[in-house]
Amino acid sequence: MQRTGRTGDVMTPEELVQIEEIKSLKHRYMRYLDQKRFDEMRSVFAADATARYSGGRYSFDGVSEIIDFLKESMSSEELLSSHRCSHPEITLLGDGKASGIWAFDDMVVMTDFGISLRGAGFYSDEYVLTEDGWRIARTGYKRTFEEIFPRAALDGLKLTASWWGTGGVSTL
Amino acid sequence: MQRTGRTGDVMTPEELVQIEEIKSLKHRYMRYLDQKRFDEMRSVFAADATARYSGGRYSFDGVSEIIDFLKESMSSEELLSSHRCSHPEITLLGDGKASGIWAFDDMVVMTDFGISLRGAGFYSDEYVLTEDGWRIARTGYKRTFEEIFPRAALDGLKLTASWWGTGGVSTL
Amino acid sequence: MQRTGRTGDVMTPEELVQIEEIKSLKHRYMRYLDQKRFDEMRSVFAADATARYSGGRYSFDGVSEIIDFLKESMSSEELLSSHRCSHPEITLLGDGKASGIWAFDDMVVMTDFGISLRGAGFYSDEYVLTEDGWRIARTGYKRTFEEIFPRAALDGLKLTASWWGTGGVSTL
Repeated sequence: MQRTGRTGDVMTPEELVQIEEIKSLKHRYMRYLDQKRFDEMRSVFAADATARYSGGRYSFDGVSEIIDFLKESMSSEELLSSHRCSHPEITLLGDGKASGIWAFDDMVVMTDFGISLRGAGFYSDEYVLTEDGWRIARTGYKRTFEEIFPRAALDGLKLTASWWGTGGVSTL
Repeated sequence: MQRTGRTGDVMTPEELVQIEEIKSLKHRYMRYLDQKRFDEMRSVFAADATARYSGGRYSFDGVSEIIDFLKESMSSEELLSSHRCSHPEITLLGDGKASGIWAFDDMVVMTDFGISLRGAGFYSDEYVLTEDGWRIARTGYKRTFEEIFPRAALDGLKLTASWWGTGGVSTL
Repeated sequence: MQRTGRTGDVMTPEELVQIEEIKSLKHRYMRYLDQKRFDEMRSVFAADATARYSGGRYSFDGVSEIIDFLKESMSSEELLSSHRCSHPEITLLGDGKASGIWAFDDMVVMTDFGISLRGAGFYSDEYVLTEDGWRIARTGYKRTFEEIFPRAALDGLKLTASWWGTGGVSTL
């Protein structure tokens, strides 16, 4: 399969359906992350999945290690996050394997620590087709940048909605 | 139809075309919003569409109520916005109906009020296939977070381009 | 071809494959931009491509002029950027031509100048199918807004990762 659009060697509509399934898989993962649905998140990973977050600084082997890390670092309802992926470049490799590159941006508000974080980077993933559909086999990212600032440094900065604190309703 | 990629029960290429049409519909809606093209925006809604914005805080029944609200709250050319949807999870339900979940991020610069807003959340939509194509039947979102700050609090913060004020050209 | 989902006049699965190729092309362009892979970026443009950035303020004719400009303005490893496109509305025009509208957001950290920039807008592109696949024939954008602020104005703002400076690893 060729994804560069070279005439006469393009992918088939059936391959495009597989690519859409992989994109949806990634989208579910991202939603579970920001909605803190860690138990449901297990279903997006292969059992022996590996994660190499932040250029390998946070490395985990097996779905349980991955979920445990995310649960521990992201469970607090004082931590509000938007992790967004875009620009998918998915390649079907045959034999039920695929790879994917995604750009990402994240914004995290930590009201308990009084810190905001913003960053961007690129994911590099591998996917595997199991009896239960496509699963993430390997995931990892490297940051283009990341920055933090103390929220108190910006006079009048005010949180006006929170999924957990206000039921997702703006109080403006 | 099954969107999880389970072997032997995946969607067809024709269904994927329908999903693409629904994504384009949503993209047009978002573009009309940030470009303040409210009259054209009527065409993305079913006549009896309902909207439940911000966890239901802003609720409207029928396309006219929806458009009137958006026109009233977003028409000012002093209000500059980026509303972005991502991570679509679209499900065809049969009988010309479909549902969709989208992540969103928004950034709004209100130069008249001297306020900037940033937020994120998730849309939950329903779509209907009419004689004129797919339309939004129900839309609504719930925020993960929302925050505001007075622009004067950030010394040297300067607007350097505006669609209406500078013709979309940077003055840097 | 009709992309509005009108019954009986929808695009074919094969057309959808072409649209996916065009999206991937744009995604590669954006990745090369933020990863500063300017030599590889040549491959996404037609030889006689034109660019009209920032409402035409920055105009270039031919791939070499475009690449030279981007190299000159974006090569510094002190400049860290996230340019993100979303909301594609791609139309196949026949005869190996296509057009596309995309929303975009950008965030640029210039540590050498001590300035951060944020902005948003819309791209309007034309694509051409060559022997080597789809290429960008014309590209240009107009900004909804753009703003800058001196990083020193935000006490405690701290860069904690950089693709080049820290190997993409967070130092938090």
